[in-house]
Amino acid sequence: MDEQDHPPAGYHHGNLRQALLAAARELLEERGPGALGLREIARRVGVSAPSAYHHFASLDAIAASLAEQGFTEFAEQLEAAPTNAGGMLAPTGEAYIAFARANPALYRLMFGEGLRGASRESKAVRALRQRAYEKVKAGLRKRLPADEVPAAALFLWSLTHGLALLMIDGQVDAGADASALIRQVLKLSGTGLPSAG
Amino acid sequence: MDEQDHPPAGYHHGNLRQALLAAARELLEERGPGALGLREIARRVGVSAPSAYHHFASLDAIAASLAEQGFTEFAEQLEAAPTNAGGMLAPTGEAYIAFARANPALYRLMFGEGLRGASRESKAVRALRQRAYEKVKAGLRKRLPADEVPAAALFLWSLTHGLALLMIDGQVDAGADASALIRQVLKLSGTGLPSAG
Repeated sequence: MDEQDHPPAGYHHGNLRQALLAAARELLEERGPGALGLREIARRVGVSAPSAYHHFASLDAIAASLAEQGFTEFAEQLEAAPTNAGGMLAPTGEAYIAFARANPALYRLMFGEGLRGASRESKAVRALRQRAYEKVKAGLRKRLPADEVPAAALFLWSLTHGLALLMIDGQVDAGADASALIRQVLKLSGTGLPSAG
Repeated sequence: MDEQDHPPAGYHHGNLRQALLAAARELLEERGPGALGLREIARRVGVSAPSAYHHFASLDAIAASLAEQGFTEFAEQLEAAPTNAGGMLAPTGEAYIAFARANPALYRLMFGEGLRGASRESKAVRALRQRAYEKVKAGLRKRLPADEVPAAALFLWSLTHGLALLMIDGQVDAGADASALIRQVLKLSGTGLPSAG
């Protein structure tokens, strides 16, 4: 049994919770959502499975906590993105894609893939996703008539979400300079494509 | 055993293959990729599991065939989309989103979710996805300098893929008229968003 293989590590309550989350996140990125299991997470931290269950009653609970942690970091990184003089949205878009590329499995989890139940059912996750979206809309209200805001926000979200997934799913041959390609794509959100043949 | 519950249904070779695929597709849309199983598929068609294995050696084989079938229909529907006088790309985009909304689980499967191994490893699926993408690029070459085509194609693909997934994942509150919202979003691909605050 694991309980005997690993001596109690003497974690404080809050520390152990954080350590379990960190191990879960590492496991998620290393081996995907199918490999997430409380026993393996406990093993990595060096505590017994019952100690882990004490903090997370189920895999869904740990997945929801991971998604919450993800959204918090995501929001911080989007807010920290430089806004350039022209008020272009591209730097925020670049920060968006960069987060997804740095945390591909977590990004998928946040948007419901893999452990669909977890991120969909969690009210906290839904609220965080909603809050991020409201921020985009608030930014757009400053530059657009109110009735154009919903479509504009969905346009930006679709573009960045789609680009993020195509990149992390390995479906884009980005060539030598992925960042340059991403910038080019995002820039088109400001100019559009010429429509006439 | 299933073999005794269901008398042989007298399928011809090609018919049985098609019947198994149709049952698999129905099961996929009804209950998701996790529920796909050759035994259940065989049961729905009314043949023995060994009869099904004769046509599809594994679940991956059936998933790859479903993805191939999906890409073939997808290409047909994109090609059938009306191109309006101004040469706008929006009707093709609308056909793209409509396909995903009508076949949500199949669309996810085609793009690697659920049975990731199946659609990623299949050369046929990769080739079909590539061919669809080449068509988009060919259309863009008529209206853009060659060096702008890769970013423009990725821009359109990201926008439609992202919008399709947000819609079928239930993450968009589309209000009363989803089609009108979709048209508004796609229209922005031609005009872009105003960049100044």
